[in-house]
Amino acid sequence: MTEQSAAALETALAYHRAWTNDDFERAMTYIADDIVCDAPSGRFEGAEAFRGFMGPFTQILTRSELLAAFGDDTTAVLMYDTDTVPVNGAPGAEWVRVVDGQIAQMRIIFDRTPFDAARRASASMASGSE
Amino acid sequence: MTEQSAAALETALAYHRAWTNDDFERAMTYIADDIVCDAPSGRFEGAEAFRGFMGPFTQILTRSELLAAFGDDTTAVLMYDTDTVPVNGAPGAEWVRVVDGQIAQMRIIFDRTPFDAARRASASMASGSE
Repeated sequence: MTEQSAAALETALAYHRAWTNDDFERAMTYIADDIVCDAPSGRFEGAEAFRGFMGPFTQILTRSELLAAFGDDTTAVLMYDTDTVPVNGAPGAEWVRVVDGQIAQMRIIFDRTPFDAARRASASMASGSE
Repeated sequence: MTEQSAAALETALAYHRAWTNDDFERAMTYIADDIVCDAPSGRFEGAEAFRGFMGPFTQILTRSELLAAFGDDTTAVLMYDTDTVPVNGAPGAEWVRVVDGQIAQMRIIFDRTPFDAARRASASMASGSE
């Protein structure tokens, strides 16, 4: 019998479960110190830069749903939907490369447009216009 | 020997190869008449609605690179990078569900922000302001 090995997928899922279950510090244990993460807003290099990018997002998360998860021994892809305080229905996709049980490289895709719109609406309300 | 079956992945890849190789009509042969596609701008129902969404994008495509492809017999996920006439480095991710060799359901994720910005810049130039 051929056993399909999927160590990277397991790491990606463990990371995902942690940050979607309000345990971002546990999620960070799956992030390599020298992670390189390409996100819509640019590249984040190193775990602290990654924390600054991803941490605030986990704080506004109100719901998440895993839509798909595939992977092998070295790479994996997850797709998920989220609701957040400013935006409902904000799906994301992540490709990761895993080295020694930690995510060394990530590419994350999501649509910034609704978040930008929510920010503008919030700023507009704060300034009293409209 | 266990043969890993991945019919949905094969369909997803055939669709992807077709539209990234300037053969959108061939790509459409992999799209079910009653496809339901959830995109950043909303839901497209039916092959003609899908054509109206995806066709124009393939016409501005100048480069594509498949970053990841995983799947099984019924579903698959692709992640790819693209360059387009208005925007370079516009990655996307697609999850598909395949029925009888055609894509019956798709969820596509990409960042609209750079496309919106390019459109605004172009409109601004056309109107002569800055």
